[in-house]
Amino acid sequence: MIDVRPVAHVIGLVIVALGVAMVFPMALDWLAGDPNWRAFLKSGVLCVIAGGAVALATANALARGLTLQQIFLLTVFAWVAACFFGALPLVLGAPGLGWLDAIFEATSGLTTTGATMIVGLDALPQGANLWRAMLHWLGGLGIVIVAMLFLPVMKVGGMQFFRSEGFDTLGKVLPRALDISSALVQIYVVLTVACAVAYAALGMTGFEAVVHALSTVSTGGFSSSDQSFAKFSGVLEYVAVVFMLAGSLPFIRFIQAWQGEWVPLWRDRQVRAYLRWNAYAIGAIVAYEMLTHDLPLEVVLRETTFNVVSVFSGTGFTSADLAGWGAFPFVILFITGLIGGCTSSTGCSVKVFRYLILIEAVKLQLRRLFAPNAVHTLRYDGRAVDDDVLNAVISFFTLFMLSFGLLSVALALTGLEFKTAVTAAWTAIANVGPAFGPEVAPTGALGAFPDAAKWVMIFGMLLGRLELMAVFVILLPRFWRT
Amino acid sequence: MIDVRPVAHVIGLVIVALGVAMVFPMALDWLAGDPNWRAFLKSGVLCVIAGGAVALATANALARGLTLQQIFLLTVFAWVAACFFGALPLVLGAPGLGWLDAIFEATSGLTTTGATMIVGLDALPQGANLWRAMLHWLGGLGIVIVAMLFLPVMKVGGMQFFRSEGFDTLGKVLPRALDISSALVQIYVVLTVACAVAYAALGMTGFEAVVHALSTVSTGGFSSSDQSFAKFSGVLEYVAVVFMLAGSLPFIRFIQAWQGEWVPLWRDRQVRAYLRWNAYAIGAIVAYEMLTHDLPLEVVLRETTFNVVSVFSGTGFTSADLAGWGAFPFVILFITGLIGGCTSSTGCSVKVFRYLILIEAVKLQLRRLFAPNAVHTLRYDGRAVDDDVLNAVISFFTLFMLSFGLLSVALALTGLEFKTAVTAAWTAIANVGPAFGPEVAPTGALGAFPDAAKWVMIFGMLLGRLELMAVFVILLPRFWRT
Ligand SMILES: [K+]
Ligand SMILES: [K+]
Repeated sequence: MIDVRPVAHVIGLVIVALGVAMVFPMALDWLAGDPNWRAFLKSGVLCVIAGGAVALATANALARGLTLQQIFLLTVFAWVAACFFGALPLVLGAPGLGWLDAIFEATSGLTTTGATMIVGLDALPQGANLWRAMLHWLGGLGIVIVAMLFLPVMKVGGMQFFRSEGFDTLGKVLPRALDISSALVQIYVVLTVACAVAYAALGMTGFEAVVHALSTVSTGGFSSSDQSFAKFSGVLEYVAVVFMLAGSLPFIRFIQAWQGEWVPLWRDRQVRAYLRWNAYAIGAIVAYEMLTHDLPLEVVLRETTFNVVSVFSGTGFTSADLAGWGAFPFVILFITGLIGGCTSSTGCSVKVFRYLILIEAVKLQLRRLFAPNAVHTLRYDGRAVDDDVLNAVISFFTLFMLSFGLLSVALALTGLEFKTAVTAAWTAIANVGPAFGPEVAPTGALGAFPDAAKWVMIFGMLLGRLELMAVFVILLPRFWRT
Repeated sequence: MIDVRPVAHVIGLVIVALGVAMVFPMALDWLAGDPNWRAFLKSGVLCVIAGGAVALATANALARGLTLQQIFLLTVFAWVAACFFGALPLVLGAPGLGWLDAIFEATSGLTTTGATMIVGLDALPQGANLWRAMLHWLGGLGIVIVAMLFLPVMKVGGMQFFRSEGFDTLGKVLPRALDISSALVQIYVVLTVACAVAYAALGMTGFEAVVHALSTVSTGGFSSSDQSFAKFSGVLEYVAVVFMLAGSLPFIRFIQAWQGEWVPLWRDRQVRAYLRWNAYAIGAIVAYEMLTHDLPLEVVLRETTFNVVSVFSGTGFTSADLAGWGAFPFVILFITGLIGGCTSSTGCSVKVFRYLILIEAVKLQLRRLFAPNAVHTLRYDGRAVDDDVLNAVISFFTLFMLSFGLLSVALALTGLEFKTAVTAAWTAIANVGPAFGPEVAPTGALGAFPDAAKWVMIFGMLLGRLELMAVFVILLPRFWRT
């Protein structure tokens, strides 16, 4: 039997922290004289009491450290608990959602998906919009920490490949996990502040700048306006491009750059491939649009760059009617969403690293076919990739595609149209944000979906965000027996 | 430099055989007094002369046997050459297609895809419809021989796993390749004759029975009517189900059953999984249709069974308006098409065997996550699966999904709608048959597609039919250098 007390202890602390974080939206609404501040006070107190009680009841349980099983449980249930408690202010105050919609909204926030239940964002109290963006930001931070500290130990999806890299390279400078986390937080804060300042300097109000900076750096996608980024069309789109890209690059490289080592960032094969593939997608769509539509080059270039990077990075802001662009751009966007950002970033989906490994494996296999006796080794960035990593990458990819298929089936079963079901499954598993189809509101909100579809998407978003295997592993009966 | 003469020799013989096969449609049209027989005479003579000249010019070249490279070239170019020469009668006689449409039709025939360019099938001379069905039948026979004799040696997509099995088990009874081929041909003929007799006995005309038997057992899907199988609604659908299933089961098991060993057929894990998954898909759709539509159970059960088996086996006959069934059945059908039949059958797509291996790999990986020190071996049907096979399966799956994505992109680029582009890519790479969307004729014909889309589909159909890697490998510059 697994001892769940250390797990409960950490989750209790996470919920306390979440409650404390509610001080920010509370203060904002209180200063604005909006009675909605009470919702944050009540929710915050509930979180601190509930989380505190659990943490206290299980104090000392952590002394012996965490086993592998406990790390899995912690990762999954920390998110589940945070999605539940993070939903409180949205039920108790504006927008006054029902439980299901509020949990959907909080899950979409904490998983950095960015699909919303709400139409009428512009009319919400500022606190509510700040809280939604903060959920993104906290979720993004959480996942980078999990990706850098837990996943390599958990060996999920081939992440063990980065274990030695992350720890070796940093070994000299940052020997302990706490140091890595604190370096991460610093960089994350610096990126967010830089983004907010740039947004404010170039035309957003202070409030909009903060909300959108929180959503951008976390590649989340919530906006404080129903228009999403169409409200900020122009130079602000280019600013967003820079910070969406930053949010989907490997944060380990930023830590190194922060220490003065810029070379690893530019030399990183994943970074190069990611930027190159973004450029290809943008180039292809721009060429197509220029040939088929009569639009000014600047508009096409800007809108294409913004929306491609938005989907590729998994942010999911929109500044144009993507579905109206035509089939070719739509298919390209759909595929970029299934690739996603780099490992140990806030980006989601399969990730560039895994495609690079898979492509190497395919090439190797093709070479083996006609030269079966030559010695072939799979290499990535000069290092040999052992079969353990390859098998994990493969399993991840298979599981991702199977999950995507099954989510589509489940969503179609709830009565959604084919296109809606497939794009909603895509947006959930890859944590992108937008969905397309007749059931989607003109603003992009998914509130009209059947209840069953919302539950399926909640499950899908968690699955995608927690790298699938972390979730599936705890569903195995054997997991609980060992 | 690769010596292409032995390859050219065999391809020459294949074209001669194709020309000789044109005697059947020629005789049919001649007996019916239809002047279209001249088209087959001319085409047949052209094939025999061209193929014969090549075969004679390269005589004796085969004496030294074939190298691995030569086997790859032979597999790919035998299909390409046959698609070209098989198109001749459709250009020189009825339906008098242009070259591109005729090559599409012949490729769709020989790859057992079954997507047609032609509206007005019922009005064609019988010889033309017989020839279309014969292309299916010959292509199906060809692929089973390639799958059983060549692919295990070529180690394409993990097929080496079946090398020892096929040859060991049969080792005692059928020591040589020629014996396997002749056993195959016997079984294939017996299945086809049984199917034709059953069709004729239950209501088809003799001609319809022969054409549809040729299309059924090869899991091809061409019909002699624009209505496809809707013309034969009723008990004939159940007959078709039996023979479509037969066409997508491993033929090696039929050979064993033919020798009196029935047990391996029923014990085969692939066969069991395939039949079970068919049953699941049928059950799910029947339940959904009964809950959402007010239709008699017999109709729902029959139409669902027929159409699920038709798509799952990769046959592609239709007897109902699949797109009108709703999103859930559509997604299910879409996914079954991406699974496909069993290895060493006329079925296509990824195939059940590879999914079983991938699912085992994922399960193993999940178990490894929380018990990293235990010894885990990947097993299939009691035998250990070595990393070579696993890597080949994974590469195949990755390449399949990437090719599917790229074909969708390419088809969308030709101007097709999103849904049309994706379903056309699906039908091409998985050799299923039907496509859906505004550019598809009400009969299901794709003649209105842009020329570029037809070329992309021709490439896609060959890619899917020849197990992808066989095609990609000859596109590598290195292939030609060794
Ligand atoms: K997102
Ligand atoms: K077919």
